[in-house]
Parts: sequence; C-alpha cells; structure tokens
Amino acid sequence: MSNNQLKNLIIKIFVKHKLKKLHATICAKAILNAELVGAPSHGLSRLKMYCERISKKVINPRPKIKIKNISKSISMIDANNSIGFVAADMGIKKTIKNARETGIGLVGIKNSGHYGLSGYYVEQAVKNNLIAFAFTNAPPAIAPYGGKKSVFGTNPICFGSPSNNKAPFILDTSMSLINRGKIRIAEKLNKKIPKGVALDKYGKPTTNAKEALSGVQLPIAEFRGSGLAWMVDILSGVFVGSNHSGKVKDPFDDFSGPQNIGHLFIAFKDNIFVKNYKRDIKKNIRRIKNTPSLKNQNIFYPGEQKYLREKINSRKKIKIPKNIKIDLNSLLLG
Amino acid sequence: MSNNQLKNLIIKIFVKHKLKKLHATICAKAILNAELVGAPSHGLSRLKMYCERISKKVINPRPKIKIKNISKSISMIDANNSIGFVAADMGIKKTIKNARETGIGLVGIKNSGHYGLSGYYVEQAVKNNLIAFAFTNAPPAIAPYGGKKSVFGTNPICFGSPSNNKAPFILDTSMSLINRGKIRIAEKLNKKIPKGVALDKYGKPTTNAKEALSGVQLPIAEFRGSGLAWMVDILSGVFVGSNHSGKVKDPFDDFSGPQNIGHLFIAFKDNIFVKNYKRDIKKNIRRIKNTPSLKNQNIFYPGEQKYLREKINSRKKIKIPKNIKIDLNSLLLG
Repeated sequence: MSNNQLKNLIIKIFVKHKLKKLHATICAKAILNAELVGAPSHGLSRLKMYCERISKKVINPRPKIKIKNISKSISMIDANNSIGFVAADMGIKKTIKNARETGIGLVGIKNSGHYGLSGYYVEQAVKNNLIAFAFTNAPPAIAPYGGKKSVFGTNPICFGSPSNNKAPFILDTSMSLINRGKIRIAEKLNKKIPKGVALDKYGKPTTNAKEALSGVQLPIAEFRGSGLAWMVDILSGVFVGSNHSGKVKDPFDDFSGPQNIGHLFIAFKDNIFVKNYKRDIKKNIRRIKNTPSLKNQNIFYPGEQKYLREKINSRKKIKIPKNIKIDLNSLLLG
Repeated sequence: MSNNQLKNLIIKIFVKHKLKKLHATICAKAILNAELVGAPSHGLSRLKMYCERISKKVINPRPKIKIKNISKSISMIDANNSIGFVAADMGIKKTIKNARETGIGLVGIKNSGHYGLSGYYVEQAVKNNLIAFAFTNAPPAIAPYGGKKSVFGTNPICFGSPSNNKAPFILDTSMSLINRGKIRIAEKLNKKIPKGVALDKYGKPTTNAKEALSGVQLPIAEFRGSGLAWMVDILSGVFVGSNHSGKVKDPFDDFSGPQNIGHLFIAFKDNIFVKNYKRDIKKNIRRIKNTPSLKNQNIFYPGEQKYLREKINSRKKIKIPKNIKIDLNSLLLG
C-alpha cells in the first residue's frame, strides 16, 4: 500500500466513523505525518483509540466548533469535544491569520482532545514566517517534584522559528525524562528502563517497565522540569478553561467522558523588530552548528533530524506492524 | 545598616557614577530585591561590575532610551546601552500597559545589559493580573548539545501567573544543570562539583570547579535543555535584534564594548478566556500541592519558597560580606 493509499484508507475509516470527509482528511494527514517524522506513537497506533472514543460518544464526530474573536489578535475556540486534530487545525489557522494581520496571534482552545504532535501545527505557523509556541496538556504521567502520584501530562513545550535553512527550527519537547512510548517498548521486549526516570506505584525508583507504567514518570531536571510541566498545565489548562491538575482523562482507558484537553497557540511575525530576520537567524544557526564538537559529531538544531527522517521516510512505504494491520481491517469493517 | 539605609547607599553610589536619581533608585531596588529573595549572586556582588562598566564607558549612564510602538500591543525599546535594570523596568511597564489595554503585550528590548532576576519583572506583571513570560540572553556559559564550547548563556525561562495565594506563581529557571554561582562557591571552598554538570576546556567531564569555570557547563536534559537555551537565544537575541550565538560579552571581564543583551516580555490578561481565573488557579494549585508526597515533604509551587525567603529576610538586616563592604566603600569614594 502506497502512503497515499494509506491516507485514503484512514480517511475512509474516519468517514465510516461519522467524520465529515474534510475532517477525516485533516486527521489522516496529521496521522500520516507522525509516521513520516518517526513518531509512530502519535500515528496509526492511535487510530483504534480515536474510533473507539467516537463509538463510545466521548469524541463528537460532528462537532459545532465555535470561534469567538476577543480582539483582532486574540481568539477563543470551543471545540465541542471534536477530535483534537480538527480543533487544532482550526486553531493554528486562526492563530496564523491573527498574527499575519496584527503582528501577534493568541488562540486558546478548550473542549478538545489529543491532537498528535505539537510540531505539526507550529510548523504551519513557521511556514507563514511566524515564530510560534504551542502548549497542550495531556493525561497524568508525571509526578510533581516531591510527589509520588502523576498529575501532569507529558505536557510538551513546542517552539518554532523560520530558520532560512531547509529544515525549520522546531523544538518539541515533553517534560518527562523518558518518552512513555519507550517504556512501553521496553515492557514488550522485557527490557529494563534506565535508572532514575520512573517510580513504581509505591513511590520507589524502578527500572522495571511494567512497574513504571503503573507508577509515575519523573520530570526532566527535577524541580525545574516539574515547574515547566506545571506552566504548561496552567497555560493550556487553567488559562483556556479546559481540564487541568490531573483531571484530563486517559484516551486509551477512560471512556467515562470527553477529555476536555486544552491547547494554546501564540505566534508573532518574525520581522516585527528587525529588518532581516531570515539573514540573522541563518547566521545564528550557522555559528552554533559550527561550535567545536565533542566527538566530531554534528551539532543539530531542533527539528533538523526530524526533517531528515521525514525526507527519507517519504520516499518509502510506511511499514505497518501486524497488529495495526488487523486494527485497520476491523475498523474498516466498522 | 538598615536595609533602607543600604538602598540609599546604593542609590548614592550609582548617582556618583552619573546615573539620574530615578534610574539609580530603580537599580537599587532590584539589587536589594535579589538579596532579599536569596539570590546574592544577582545582588550586591555585581555592584562593582556595573560601576566599572559605567566608568569604562560600556554602560551608558545617561541613555536616550527610545520606545517605538509598533501597534497597541507590540513595542520595541532601544535601550541605548543603558544599565539593564532601567531598560527592563521601562520594558515591563510598557508590556503591562499594552496587555492591560489590548489583552496582550509583546515588548522587545535591544542594546541593554544584565538586568538581574527575570522573576523581579514578571512579578510586576503578575501583580497586574497578567500571565507573563520573560526571556533574556546572557554571556556564553553552556555548550550546545554535542559541543565543547560555550555558546548559550544560562538563558533563563521565566513564567509567572497570579496564584490567588500569597506567593505569586513565578518559575524562573536557567537552562544550566548547576548555577554558575554554585561552581564559584565550590572553587572558593576547594570542594568538588557533582559529576556530569560541566566539562573542562578540553571537553572532558570534570568535578573540579576551577576546570569547570574555564570549561563549559552542560544544559539540563541534554538535547532538550540545549534546545530550550537555543530558543531563548532566538527570542531575546535574533528576534529583538540584540547579540546572540555566543556574542554577548561577559560583563565581568570583557570591557571591549557594550553587552547588547536583549530581553523579550510577553504578557496577557489572565481572564481573557475564562470568567474566574483566580478561582480556577487556586483550585489547580491546591490540587497539585495535595499530591501524595515521597517523604512527607511539602510540594511547593514555583515562587513559593522564594516568597517565604523574602518574607523572612525582609525582617532582618542584609548581611554584607567583608569583600563587598570594601567594594561599597571604595565605590562611594569613586
């Protein structure tokens, strides 16, 4: 199956689950992108979950999404429990419009769901000559510093800027010491996880993947990472009026109601303060990449390696694991 | 000497170094605040350096600071090589004004210098019911991930929000694994620094403080912390038109010209998206602080401990180390 055929298949599955063709296409593109940039944990592996949430009526397949313009720069979106991709697509487009027109755009989104990779949205803003942030909250995975129970999601901070190089500068970093996907893989392969990245459910450090999954992950940089995760909980939770402080439901195993995830996008024109931002950022990146390196290794800027992976993967067919093929078939049958 | 007398002494010293009384007062307040919140590395210990930079004409004591309003939300400040405190004070006041009037404020500052603690400015915005960010660059201290030469400053990310508790929520975190001040203290006491936080000038890991000071500090969380430091270099350097990518001069030992540090402030009204932000943030903080803890310890939110320190310290006289007393006397004599 070619990647285009795969995209059409995903669209078909979503349409079968009552999404409009336009919305299904938005979702399919985002899912395919996650596979191409090398983040399969945000790709096809979540398709079944999205469909299950639609079937169980905790994702609204035909949402009435409301946009309220608070000013020419600031807008609020109530996503009406839409699938996250659709709400975020609308949100980033609105952010781009506001920022292109007034220099700065701020858009808050509530009543949304998991939207895939933050970088996917920030990249759209960057392609419009904007510097942009995306914040989103997520179901509990990280304990606050000093705690032994998960409260914060992996709560990524995503920042992007035009780079005047082929790959845009896109930093998309979660606040956990290790990706949850990596722990899941270690569990499947019966391998240990590194010391100091997780606690078991009794609050004891563990290198056992299974124990870590039922316990908590630790934030990067102790009090500092915990503080950054808290910041993201405030920005995309409290500030926009979505769930926060541990109340976001896990999309995989909690069907008791919608997630009510929140997102916050901020963007500003790259050239509001300087004449030639493109020239300056190119110089910045060149100088830093030329820093003497430790082991004759390349110094990469954020987004560079993802761009290279996407380029290589786009020329190949996406490899679909067996269990996901089975999912796709059963989802098609509905 | 009472803290008020100390403040007047600092004002006197700055006036002797040609600052206007108003500007000297702004500086004295910020320096005193650093002492009170327990950050003496950003307090009196820098007074001699500031005065030396004025005497050597790399800080302009009588700057013609220009404010350009790009829109009602966005302003640009050219600080004309003023002392950082004065530029940042003007910058945060302008940010507050823009945000209070339009919901959002974005202010870039170039041709500035070291401004002390970011939290000091963010707190002013928070007291005006704003959620705020401050970014500033700094002289090279951190190597990019994979590099063995310093390029990024400690490049703090500062974020604040009203908390509806006594202490405002203020996260002010540098991107280095260890504070440079702590390495300096270890050097003086002939103590080792922890493993893995710094490299010597040949790029080898070191626990020797002296070697670390002539080598590089490592960022938090490897590639992620390096990326965050890079983000701050872009936001407060490239974007606002100040020095960046390793070109910010060290204020203590490079008098070959002004620092041309940049700052970026972003603020938005806390209640643009929700009706009762104060109630919601209080609930957020209460829930997270109530997370079961590891060792019956308190879970603090960012800014809480600093607030407690400031409260305690404000009731006492600031202890002035001998060498700084000598500095103060010699600066008074001019």
